[in-house]
Amino acid sequence: MYFHALIPFKPTNPKTRLSCILNQEEREAFARAMLEDVIASVLKSGCSATLLCTHPFKHENALIAVRKESLNEAINWALGQFHCPALIIMADLPLVTAGDIQRLIRTEKDMAIVPGRGGGTNVIFLKKPRCFHADFYGASFLDHLRIAEECGFSVDVIDSFRMSTDVDEKEDLVEILIHGKKRKSREFLESSGFSIVIDEKGRVGVQRDPHKETL
Amino acid sequence: MYFHALIPFKPTNPKTRLSCILNQEEREAFARAMLEDVIASVLKSGCSATLLCTHPFKHENALIAVRKESLNEAINWALGQFHCPALIIMADLPLVTAGDIQRLIRTEKDMAIVPGRGGGTNVIFLKKPRCFHADFYGASFLDHLRIAEECGFSVDVIDSFRMSTDVDEKEDLVEILIHGKKRKSREFLESSGFSIVIDEKGRVGVQRDPHKETL
Repeated sequence: MYFHALIPFKPTNPKTRLSCILNQEEREAFARAMLEDVIASVLKSGCSATLLCTHPFKHENALIAVRKESLNEAINWALGQFHCPALIIMADLPLVTAGDIQRLIRTEKDMAIVPGRGGGTNVIFLKKPRCFHADFYGASFLDHLRIAEECGFSVDVIDSFRMSTDVDEKEDLVEILIHGKKRKSREFLESSGFSIVIDEKGRVGVQRDPHKETL
Repeated sequence: MYFHALIPFKPTNPKTRLSCILNQEEREAFARAMLEDVIASVLKSGCSATLLCTHPFKHENALIAVRKESLNEAINWALGQFHCPALIIMADLPLVTAGDIQRLIRTEKDMAIVPGRGGGTNVIFLKKPRCFHADFYGASFLDHLRIAEECGFSVDVIDSFRMSTDVDEKEDLVEILIHGKKRKSREFLESSGFSIVIDEKGRVGVQRDPHKETL
């Protein structure tokens, strides 16, 4: 393992913006399926994985740290433990591939960062993690660029649709169904009765087979 | 100029989904600003540009073809004229860079394609355009993959956040304000009083200075 990946994860009642189409048990299973997709790509890229969990959780292929504090405090606590390069990657990026992660860890800059949609940050790779602090809130992409500048870091902004696609809302499920071949998260959605549907204006959405709803 | 780029463009009453925040004159100016961003990157990448316009339009640095038929019919008419490799690129991708376009035109495959969000297609590069036909409607990304397969084309799917970001709705303006440094479209938005705003849940949106509204 070359580098260490930190993956924040909320096992209990996650992804509440999907409550309109998935009940709590389903959301927990779906979040775990997306996590499996992320962990698989992380391990395949040559990184080891530590889950920063809000509640107790078990995983065969990852270390676990249960942290009660906020997302940023948990990440910054973990960064303080590191003496080696670190990758911070969100657990809701099911389209990420091992090759995508390698685009970050092979950077020649001090830091590589992947923006998410709406001003967010989805992945950060840090060669000197102890100098940095995470600020995942609001327009975090601009905040992280500013923090990198304060640290004197050179920065590589990685342009990636797959890694920019975090899954929070019903419409985001379209991306998994269209681009998520072989992903556990797509298997979950398909076995739960989800499929794509095109409305009269040509816009693509998701629908669920009512026979497979358990709400 | 190595390759020829086709850019469909609607100069009159474009981007109606932005009507809630921009009047028709403003939407036309904004669409032109995004077009300028796309043309600048196309020319810098080494391609020449032809605009496929729904209405008469003039441009110093591009050829113009006014076509009354639908988007797909216009593109397929143009592809029929080509004897050289062709790039089809949408006019509402203001974040695209010349380097991004070069990722497509340097492909070793027969075709390179960039998905947009929601199942769409934002850019296609074709080495043998006359074998292909465009089908920009609904889940066009999957349709274009199927058409490529029917043509026997090898396909390169290009993973790009910037090129996946087409601008149709108010929330898409966030991407220009955050990632659109030096873009004409960002200049337009800023001079029209737009800025980013973060709500109480940490979500990023846009707001407009009421003194600069002309609705």
